Amino acid sequence: MTRKLRMGMIGGGTGSFIGDVHRKAASIDGMIELVCGAFSSTAEKSISSGKDLLLPADRCYSNFEEMIQKEKALPENIRMDFVAIVTPNHMHFPPAKLALENGFNVICDKPITLTLEEATELKTVIDKSGKTFALTHNYTGNSMVKQARAMIKNGDIGKVRKVQVQYLQGWLATSLEETGQKQAAWRVDPKRSGIGGALGDIGTHAENLTEYITGLKIDEIAADLGIFGKGRTLDDDGNILLRLENGAKGTLSISQIAVGEENNLAIKVYGEKGSIIWQQENPNELITKWLDEPVKTYTPNGNGLYPEALNVSRIPAGHPEGYLEAFATVYKNFANHLLSLENGETPKTPDFPTVEDGIRGMQFIYAAVKSSNENSIWTKL
Amino acid sequence: MTRKLRMGMIGGGTGSFIGDVHRKAASIDGMIELVCGAFSSTAEKSISSGKDLLLPADRCYSNFEEMIQKEKALPENIRMDFVAIVTPNHMHFPPAKLALENGFNVICDKPITLTLEEATELKTVIDKSGKTFALTHNYTGNSMVKQARAMIKNGDIGKVRKVQVQYLQGWLATSLEETGQKQAAWRVDPKRSGIGGALGDIGTHAENLTEYITGLKIDEIAADLGIFGKGRTLDDDGNILLRLENGAKGTLSISQIAVGEENNLAIKVYGEKGSIIWQQENPNELITKWLDEPVKTYTPNGNGLYPEALNVSRIPAGHPEGYLEAFATVYKNFANHLLSLENGETPKTPDFPTVEDGIRGMQFIYAAVKSSNENSIWTKL
Amino acid sequence: MTRKLRMGMIGGGTGSFIGDVHRKAASIDGMIELVCGAFSSTAEKSISSGKDLLLPADRCYSNFEEMIQKEKALPENIRMDFVAIVTPNHMHFPPAKLALENGFNVICDKPITLTLEEATELKTVIDKSGKTFALTHNYTGNSMVKQARAMIKNGDIGKVRKVQVQYLQGWLATSLEETGQKQAAWRVDPKRSGIGGALGDIGTHAENLTEYITGLKIDEIAADLGIFGKGRTLDDDGNILLRLENGAKGTLSISQIAVGEENNLAIKVYGEKGSIIWQQENPNELITKWLDEPVKTYTPNGNGLYPEALNVSRIPAGHPEGYLEAFATVYKNFANHLLSLENGETPKTPDFPTVEDGIRGMQFIYAAVKSSNENSIWTKL
Amino acid sequence: MTRKLRMGMIGGGTGSFIGDVHRKAASIDGMIELVCGAFSSTAEKSISSGKDLLLPADRCYSNFEEMIQKEKALPENIRMDFVAIVTPNHMHFPPAKLALENGFNVICDKPITLTLEEATELKTVIDKSGKTFALTHNYTGNSMVKQARAMIKNGDIGKVRKVQVQYLQGWLATSLEETGQKQAAWRVDPKRSGIGGALGDIGTHAENLTEYITGLKIDEIAADLGIFGKGRTLDDDGNILLRLENGAKGTLSISQIAVGEENNLAIKVYGEKGSIIWQQENPNELITKWLDEPVKTYTPNGNGLYPEALNVSRIPAGHPEGYLEAFATVYKNFANHLLSLENGETPKTPDFPTVEDGIRGMQFIYAAVKSSNENSIWTKL
Repeated sequence: MTRKLRMGMIGGGTGSFIGDVHRKAASIDGMIELVCGAFSSTAEKSISSGKDLLLPADRCYSNFEEMIQKEKALPENIRMDFVAIVTPNHMHFPPAKLALENGFNVICDKPITLTLEEATELKTVIDKSGKTFALTHNYTGNSMVKQARAMIKNGDIGKVRKVQVQYLQGWLATSLEETGQKQAAWRVDPKRSGIGGALGDIGTHAENLTEYITGLKIDEIAADLGIFGKGRTLDDDGNILLRLENGAKGTLSISQIAVGEENNLAIKVYGEKGSIIWQQENPNELITKWLDEPVKTYTPNGNGLYPEALNVSRIPAGHPEGYLEAFATVYKNFANHLLSLENGETPKTPDFPTVEDGIRGMQFIYAAVKSSNENSIWTKL
Repeated sequence: MTRKLRMGMIGGGTGSFIGDVHRKAASIDGMIELVCGAFSSTAEKSISSGKDLLLPADRCYSNFEEMIQKEKALPENIRMDFVAIVTPNHMHFPPAKLALENGFNVICDKPITLTLEEATELKTVIDKSGKTFALTHNYTGNSMVKQARAMIKNGDIGKVRKVQVQYLQGWLATSLEETGQKQAAWRVDPKRSGIGGALGDIGTHAENLTEYITGLKIDEIAADLGIFGKGRTLDDDGNILLRLENGAKGTLSISQIAVGEENNLAIKVYGEKGSIIWQQENPNELITKWLDEPVKTYTPNGNGLYPEALNVSRIPAGHPEGYLEAFATVYKNFANHLLSLENGETPKTPDFPTVEDGIRGMQFIYAAVKSSNENSIWTKL
Repeated sequence: MTRKLRMGMIGGGTGSFIGDVHRKAASIDGMIELVCGAFSSTAEKSISSGKDLLLPADRCYSNFEEMIQKEKALPENIRMDFVAIVTPNHMHFPPAKLALENGFNVICDKPITLTLEEATELKTVIDKSGKTFALTHNYTGNSMVKQARAMIKNGDIGKVRKVQVQYLQGWLATSLEETGQKQAAWRVDPKRSGIGGALGDIGTHAENLTEYITGLKIDEIAADLGIFGKGRTLDDDGNILLRLENGAKGTLSISQIAVGEENNLAIKVYGEKGSIIWQQENPNELITKWLDEPVKTYTPNGNGLYPEALNVSRIPAGHPEGYLEAFATVYKNFANHLLSLENGETPKTPDFPTVEDGIRGMQFIYAAVKSSNENSIWTKL
Repeated sequence: MTRKLRMGMIGGGTGSFIGDVHRKAASIDGMIELVCGAFSSTAEKSISSGKDLLLPADRCYSNFEEMIQKEKALPENIRMDFVAIVTPNHMHFPPAKLALENGFNVICDKPITLTLEEATELKTVIDKSGKTFALTHNYTGNSMVKQARAMIKNGDIGKVRKVQVQYLQGWLATSLEETGQKQAAWRVDPKRSGIGGALGDIGTHAENLTEYITGLKIDEIAADLGIFGKGRTLDDDGNILLRLENGAKGTLSISQIAVGEENNLAIKVYGEKGSIIWQQENPNELITKWLDEPVKTYTPNGNGLYPEALNVSRIPAGHPEGYLEAFATVYKNFANHLLSLENGETPKTPDFPTVEDGIRGMQFIYAAVKSSNENSIWTKL
């Protein structure tokens, strides 16, 4: 590492869940320091949040426009290298576009934008800017997810035939949005969430994980979305059939009203010779099953792993890593990519989610809503 | 118990899997003795099988017609009380009908018949005969399944909103039927299996368990069946969306090509207040999750159970019961029902699957095939 | 199988736990039928119990002496082949001795006798009688226990270095014996249990399982027994250090006051190259760990098993077998041994626990009590 | 938070395991920044390590003496606030003493010192210095450990009767120290490890966790240590009986030759009314068992927790935290303590391990070695 990268944050003011996650994830590996931010849509809160974070007053900005403009005016060795966007969905595209157009790299929470149109436009902006854009589909940062992907890529389980993926939560089983809980409030609001509710919030993670692990595109889906919470207009549950590009079939089930489920993202992939099972709540275990051999369970930094998995672990086998570490791996890979470019090294295929993943996510949301509105007709992504 | 019931078996000759299961299940509780059988479609094998089972030569019959006729001619205190039918699907209806029409009670493996028409006709035969008919949806015999059903019936988890059920096996992942393996051979043969492959063999278990545990009917389904084994004409995989009569939604996934899966039947039911999770391969555990309380795990004969669950256990908590014991519970309840009737007691609602369950199963198969043939259109059962 | 074996039972009257277990275990495989019994120490209860079990009145005996005498007088093709002894510990030796001396084979619950002296005398009686004696250390009947034993025997995990074994229950955490609960009452009574409480009841299982799986003798132990229940005089808890004959070391922990534990028998064996883990409450899984390979989990009738394990399963992989099936395997192996002898076949090394195991168990109890009385001094078995 | 604390590190040069852990743990919560270090016993490596960490050249010191002296000479608002000591055991006491005597707070890896004498002397030094000393028994930082401790403190499980604790690893099953692996090399060397091998490295964690969770002191132990690795002189395995101050009994088992075990620290505590089970490799789960209720499983930030557990979680339920986060909690609590003192707030009982814990650990090592040398005689701590 030749230097620490400087991060400016948009959103993530005091009390925010995901802003704090991004800050912790960015800090674990010692490669990134927070240097400035526009932490809130209200200037006062933005500045007080920056103060809470011990930032100098002149790097706490009233809004993202000001931040981008003023940081740009700073000397190159002081100004931020990239912005991290951790706002609700409707506030992803505007700051991302502005930052890119002003020469800043961007790392952004998912789903990538409010609408599919914004997502495709963002791709154009990125391409034109020549800057780097990363999307925090954080679960791809888990060591055992890397192992699963490598095993499938290397043909260990043979041609994929069946996928079961789910992302189940229960936190919206009651009308939490009516209690003033902020995270709930914007997620059930189409103006801030977009046309998908659970679809955008967790469905895109399930979709992304499926394509990341299998290396296959989802070709078409048949969706039956549900709205169980009183007065809601966005899906809080969904059951979806999958057809993958290679002929594999499967199910994708999501819910935010599955009482008692915390963050139960899980995937099973069945191939012609073997199968893999991974569960986010018990992330340090990859269960694999085989035609003629006993069940084999892999662990981070444990025996028999591919380099793709070994590279990810920070600590020896048996020392559990979790959500923040996986998130941090996305940041680390993003940071290493930026440093490579800065140092004139030929950039590798980036090992972090990109705008392409973001567009896939939006296509997934749109196809699911369309299919569900037409009584679950098969719909291409 | 006033006397042992006398069982005659149809099918289940030497080397049979399910015939042996029925005999063991029938014997565990000491309420039933095997007295005769027509164990095979070939007379010679039938008789040699009976001999292997130490039956007297004059109770080993060449075929089921002979058995029913000759047993009927025996004195009442010697002749069989009921027949157990453990043949491939196409041979369920003929012997069941003949036995009932000749005054014998019947217990029969699932799916109930080869066709839906047979199933409805069988109901007429049963009603007319006044005899008792039981269907061995054996998983309903598990203590923790009874507990799950009782909890939902008593409103513990509130109104059901979402169901996930699966039955995954991997034994047909390769072309086992081409190796001469008998169980594989008839299951992939529409003449012996019917219009459903995995659907009939395991899908009906998943469907039955869903309706048994939730107490709700499946209203309609959207199915995407798959055929992955070379040269097969029947489904060996299926992904199905569910809509239940009360508005709940869900998924039902089955497979016989899920490499490495042994007999992975599992169900999750999410209600407004709580949820339940049960897995057949780890049957002595019922996991429940709640809005405001920690996860609670129930065990057979353990703390906090309903009588419906307690009644089922044969041994103290911590002494695992398994597949055969659950199967045996169906036999025990069937036997107790027959003895109640014999002793002039008012029969309770039978706690074993009946012809109604069998018809539901056939409707499920037919709806799934129709839906899948029409590109997963929603189809009523 | 050439014929069914005829069993006479001593103990196990109506309401008994273990008598019912023995009857179910004996019946599952269809090799044994119960023909007579002396089910209780009171004649009346003995006879009414026999009636409950549908035995003919002339085969329900007032006491075991009468049973042995009268059965001996019956024609060879009618009289019982063996007695099953399922009484409290103090009533093992007298009927076993009498049965053997009168030409009957014996299968007996553990611990083998009330005292070590009885155990060694019983060996003399057995040797002199030429009859077969089996001890129901039922956990040795589990498929995964057989696999563990075979793996160690075949050197898969290398030389054994460390053993952790435990048998934890919580049912005596409160003063259950004061409530009239019969099973509790005799277990805390030295006159009926012997000098060991938990030691005899469950400690001998842990000791036996250790020697069975590892193939190694326990050389010496250092025991710290505990009595936590008010007014008890026998141990209801114990923590014991182990030294095995080959230099391996370990711990053996037992308890009947471990609140919430049901029947938590578990063993871990660590060798130079690998290790095995088995838990009775989840018996259909054998976890193995290795120097350079991922964790491998074996399942009954699953992939990669030794014949010793495959021979035990009654049903395909994924269909859980439990406590009764493992118990039944001891009965089946005992029955096959008797039939081999009857048919003039050379008997193999018996694959069921014998008087030698019984003596080891008593030596273990005596060594543990002695060690504990001398403040945990190392004591040879 | 009013300001970031400045950390100086002793040990932990490039390639170090535990140094990197301390740095990551210190950084997660954004309360601490690394400002200087003496990272190695060789000046050159120390300085190159500091450079790798992007420290300014004038804050990379050749040795700890230089660092303490030069930092002391810096202005108060620049110089380090505390030193983190992450060297092998023999190099804990000298820098800790020097740092304290020069007015620096200290956080130190365990075991606290090379000898018991050093530990007690260190206490005197600390007391005299008026500075704060923390010991990184990191497992106490887990949310579920806090919950277990709070449950026992609040009497939920009643008086403790039995404890089972283990810390099992397999990484020294072969002669790793002969391959040049540094971590292995110093751990088997009495000059750098002290009189305990596995005892000091992991046994002290097991001992500390026992006393932390139960709130009880271990009164005496009977130890049987083992040396299985060729040519070693320190224990690499141990089996130990426990007697706690309140009359509870138990076992403590440690190993570094338990093949396939990664970092299997686990504890079970049985009280009169309930019991708790926690396993470090699956840290986000606390299993509790009860006299009359089903098994209840708690999760971080999940339902039914005490404030002591809730305070620890950084992210919502279902987002697993791991080893680094627990470690970070020790750092966070240490940092908060220092800031409280700085801000003139009355310091609470520190919620991080202190010198008292360190002395207990050394007493445990010494008692275990003494007991084992005298053939497992009961020995007071």
